[in-house]
Amino acid sequence: MNEFELIRQYFARPATDAVLGVGDDAALLRPTPGCELHVAVDMLVEGRHFFADVDPADLGHKTLAVNLSDMAAMGAVPRWALLSLALPRADTGWVSRLASGLFALAGRHGVTLVGGDTTRGPLTLSLTILGEAPAGTALRRDGAREGDDIWVSGELGLAALALAHRLGTLDEELPDEVRGLAEARMDRPEPRVALGVALRGLVHSAIDVSDGLLADLSHIAAASGVAGEVWLDALPSHPWLEARRAWCAALLAAGGDDYELCFTAPRSAREAVLQAGARAGCRVSRIGMIHAGQGVELLDAHGTPCYLGRSGFDHFDTP
Amino acid sequence: MNEFELIRQYFARPATDAVLGVGDDAALLRPTPGCELHVAVDMLVEGRHFFADVDPADLGHKTLAVNLSDMAAMGAVPRWALLSLALPRADTGWVSRLASGLFALAGRHGVTLVGGDTTRGPLTLSLTILGEAPAGTALRRDGAREGDDIWVSGELGLAALALAHRLGTLDEELPDEVRGLAEARMDRPEPRVALGVALRGLVHSAIDVSDGLLADLSHIAAASGVAGEVWLDALPSHPWLEARRAWCAALLAAGGDDYELCFTAPRSAREAVLQAGARAGCRVSRIGMIHAGQGVELLDAHGTPCYLGRSGFDHFDTP
Repeated sequence: MNEFELIRQYFARPATDAVLGVGDDAALLRPTPGCELHVAVDMLVEGRHFFADVDPADLGHKTLAVNLSDMAAMGAVPRWALLSLALPRADTGWVSRLASGLFALAGRHGVTLVGGDTTRGPLTLSLTILGEAPAGTALRRDGAREGDDIWVSGELGLAALALAHRLGTLDEELPDEVRGLAEARMDRPEPRVALGVALRGLVHSAIDVSDGLLADLSHIAAASGVAGEVWLDALPSHPWLEARRAWCAALLAAGGDDYELCFTAPRSAREAVLQAGARAGCRVSRIGMIHAGQGVELLDAHGTPCYLGRSGFDHFDTP
Repeated sequence: MNEFELIRQYFARPATDAVLGVGDDAALLRPTPGCELHVAVDMLVEGRHFFADVDPADLGHKTLAVNLSDMAAMGAVPRWALLSLALPRADTGWVSRLASGLFALAGRHGVTLVGGDTTRGPLTLSLTILGEAPAGTALRRDGAREGDDIWVSGELGLAALALAHRLGTLDEELPDEVRGLAEARMDRPEPRVALGVALRGLVHSAIDVSDGLLADLSHIAAASGVAGEVWLDALPSHPWLEARRAWCAALLAAGGDDYELCFTAPRSAREAVLQAGARAGCRVSRIGMIHAGQGVELLDAHGTPCYLGRSGFDHFDTP
């Protein structure tokens, strides 16, 4: 089987939402008048973003999910995707499972795969996502203001817990039920697309939590020219982790791979934010405050800063 | 230096043609009303698409050029790009040269880099290009008709000649001047963007020649449900190659990396196609005919089919 047949067989599904999908030199799309186009790309590399023995269906899910999470963080509705794929060999069973995981999530979000590229090389995936939102409604990083509440969606730290368990760096036994939940969050994160849309017009800034809460919140603080304080005791998670906040602080606040939304909103929007969470079927928790200054601090129950050693995931600083 | 600083320093230039460029969860773009959006992606892997000792400035140029060539083949004007980059290490000198090659070509074509992703991994680049053309004007692969002339732009086979020289598979000595020209075509191809735009409304089908003329023309034939014959003696190239058509047939017709446009047009458009070439400052040559049937044949001066052993580059069929 050659690369053209491979692409055609697994990725060239009818593109109902495009003038022209996979199979020409470019895909042809009709943007919605009055909308801005949102575009993002994320690259996943074996051994760095996933283990070599990953279930390819999970990998297909996650490759799209991390990009949908970027759309969620902008308040955009994802519409189209393109996939670049470097494969060590043309393993049709593996590619078929990858495609099934990707298309299942795409279908649930109304996203059409309209193009891509396949080549031989070390296993690497790069997915480009295109979405839309009415002009002027984007949730940006640079709008946080003094006095804003800091919020986060869902639960933090579960994906990092699964990773720590897998790497054998956990000191404590993990109950099977917690391990299963944590692995599901690591392997098949659910991007908060509906919440992002529901937050349009309510929040001053937003970002998705992919590198760890403090690292990502630091991007909001830097882009907005403000400082933030985050309360360890307010960080939402699974009860097992919430009962172990002190020694799990790094998992909760700097764990990475959460794919939750972190956002800031004025005090006056508290009720509306809670209603937006309810509409989106998603827990939202108030976890801190924006101040004048710079930097982001994690405070314990006594208001004392916690130092975690690292504030997030950096592809070049970690070995 | 961590990945965020690296990205900011070399790739986060002011995005004059975007609502929001590099630095948020997504770029924000304003598509032109009445235009279709053209989107394509190409991935380049070390050892497969370029040598490990490539000049990074050439690599930056070529990574964008191969994508601009896709826009050219659609008759679209390229506007925005996103770059995914996996790097074995954060070598700032190398990244700086890569960025300089990419931005120099982007500047010449009015393309703005609006986003991307950088991670550690085996050297891999994936570039997404977005362009525009008035709705309904796209040059597609599926419109070739019986009786169409087959045309190609520029010169064929030079990049393949440079590759053969580099790999030591050429039987003949290469004059320095030819070698220099050939290497320039391999390292820094010039995408035919102006020609693609000039051909709007004139041609029935178009594709860019990246995998070899016959392989790419076969895609037009298959998508259009027609057959093609190509005349070896009509293939345009450098005089050194034209004087050696017989033993260089594979380089000319199946060499790959040409980044010329191959297109089909009705006989009635001959004069207009030549004028379009002149307007775009680009040689255009009539090289064959579209017939009923299927497949593509290369014919010698006697009308006898030439068999080249392979019709193009396939990432999984070649070792």
